[in-house]
Amino acid sequence: MEERTEINDLGEFGLIEYLTRNIEINNAGTILGVGDDAAVIDHFGKQTVVSTDMLVEGIHFDLMYTPLKHLGYKAVVVNLSDIYAMNATPTHITLSLAFSNRFSLEALSEFYEGVYAACDKYKVDLIGGDTTTSQKGFVISVTALGEVAPDKFVKRSTAGKGDLLCVSGDLGAAYLGLTILEREKQIFLENPNIQPDLENETYCIGRQLKPEARHDIISFLAGKEIMPTAMMDVSDGLSSEILHICKQSEVGCVLYEEKIPVHDDSRQLAMKLGLDPTACALSGGEDYELLFTLKQEDYDKITLNEEIAVIGYITDASEGAHIITRGNNKHQITAQGWNAFK
Amino acid sequence: MEERTEINDLGEFGLIEYLTRNIEINNAGTILGVGDDAAVIDHFGKQTVVSTDMLVEGIHFDLMYTPLKHLGYKAVVVNLSDIYAMNATPTHITLSLAFSNRFSLEALSEFYEGVYAACDKYKVDLIGGDTTTSQKGFVISVTALGEVAPDKFVKRSTAGKGDLLCVSGDLGAAYLGLTILEREKQIFLENPNIQPDLENETYCIGRQLKPEARHDIISFLAGKEIMPTAMMDVSDGLSSEILHICKQSEVGCVLYEEKIPVHDDSRQLAMKLGLDPTACALSGGEDYELLFTLKQEDYDKITLNEEIAVIGYITDASEGAHIITRGNNKHQITAQGWNAFK
Repeated sequence: MEERTEINDLGEFGLIEYLTRNIEINNAGTILGVGDDAAVIDHFGKQTVVSTDMLVEGIHFDLMYTPLKHLGYKAVVVNLSDIYAMNATPTHITLSLAFSNRFSLEALSEFYEGVYAACDKYKVDLIGGDTTTSQKGFVISVTALGEVAPDKFVKRSTAGKGDLLCVSGDLGAAYLGLTILEREKQIFLENPNIQPDLENETYCIGRQLKPEARHDIISFLAGKEIMPTAMMDVSDGLSSEILHICKQSEVGCVLYEEKIPVHDDSRQLAMKLGLDPTACALSGGEDYELLFTLKQEDYDKITLNEEIAVIGYITDASEGAHIITRGNNKHQITAQGWNAFK
Repeated sequence: MEERTEINDLGEFGLIEYLTRNIEINNAGTILGVGDDAAVIDHFGKQTVVSTDMLVEGIHFDLMYTPLKHLGYKAVVVNLSDIYAMNATPTHITLSLAFSNRFSLEALSEFYEGVYAACDKYKVDLIGGDTTTSQKGFVISVTALGEVAPDKFVKRSTAGKGDLLCVSGDLGAAYLGLTILEREKQIFLENPNIQPDLENETYCIGRQLKPEARHDIISFLAGKEIMPTAMMDVSDGLSSEILHICKQSEVGCVLYEEKIPVHDDSRQLAMKLGLDPTACALSGGEDYELLFTLKQEDYDKITLNEEIAVIGYITDASEGAHIITRGNNKHQITAQGWNAFK
């Protein structure tokens, strides 16, 4: 009998590690391959940054409450976020779609409107793609290309002891937006006459349906001549991403619960839903904020930027990765981020 | 009531034309966008060529008779073929996959073995990707990057009157391979005790399951200092591709049936299946040969290459696109290539 190992047992990152363990590099121009937000290839002076993402209906989005225009916008933005997370500027995308025959041209046009809106806002060009049918559901694959000056790209694996741990914007809102949308969907399915009550939740719902990529943070850091020592975007949840940086940089960290930025609207919605705002920030995902580490001497340069919060610091690996709670308890950080395989 | 236009009515190319009709270019480095085998972007001297393809289970492949290793190999090769079709050299790929939980790690490993075999053979690097679950079926998205010296890339839109119409290798075999695999599948489904009779059909089945991209033709042309005036790869069938070149170059053509290269094994299998070998070559698809046009003065340089056949010539657009049959009849060429939307 053939051996059978379930993918669930490995999770996405274990799976990628396993499948790429024997990977060989053929081209001298390949500077950074699998294992970061994006790959880096050398092109005669400047470097090209490449990232790709796949979004699958029923796994990553629910068309019952996701307007197609927003979906097109988000499909682009989540890829651009990976390019910014390398400290690079996105320039081009390709887009491949598979969809079943329940999609009309009008529906696809709406999707593309969102794609073009994102291209326009972030000044990137859609340069190619593929469209085909699927047996079931809508599948979106975007590859983004960007550019960065030589040696200016920032990896996940280069955080150093004593560095400040920083995050942009606020966290947890996208997850809370998803939670309320899912709740209203269930209510609607049980009784189609009840109108959804979403008016007060525009902030969190907006963060879920139409996220933005933090090009402003990249511009700010460049303007202040700050090179983060490590960086990635927050797509799976803060705790999962912090553990990636710690593992790949071979360091530990201390994170302060009270420093984690959570929007007032998120806090209120969390309360209403009976959820812990900190748990939403740590494990929610889809915030597309930037998580990065800085040398301590750069601290003065960021204090006036209200969009950047210092949430902790990097320690020696032997000290592990911990969170200090508001009640001054110390807990080990565990990855409970979003996992498509569970 | 909302308007609803069926995608079927447009076909893939009509759909792409419609969806990209208002496309705007933001980056000066975007040299060639949507509408060819690949896009071209400028990177400080050399140019980067980008192509992407999506393969969907049940639409593009049937796992009942497609070994996963072959599928991985083919998923890479069909993208590299698009890069070669630009007269460029592929250097990197990204790979995104969605699969349901019926796939084990062993199955995925087999698929990746094929991916790596193709990367190894064509000297390209897998630099990134995404893996996720699907509700149903296996979806593969590959983006390939390549490089080409400035102004050496070859488009579809630049064929000129009087140019020779050429094709590499032979045509129709991949379609015939698919046909026999589908027939044996039906026989097996009706009576699982009957063993498939495929031994004599290794050539055609090989062309279907494990195609190769024609890097040898690109090397040969470069060695002889021949720049094709237009080029594309044959993925949808010869007639469909010829019409693309005619439409985009605003020219007509004459194609000679007797000049279309068909392998002896293909001819025999076509006979056995009661199919016309020429129809298989014209409409079959998936041959991944190169279709290109040359200046007449380059004719002497290619006569000794048995892998290149001159199959016709380019005319004024007003003369249309025609095939001269063995019986010396003249017919208009119509696109009956493979269409995922039908």
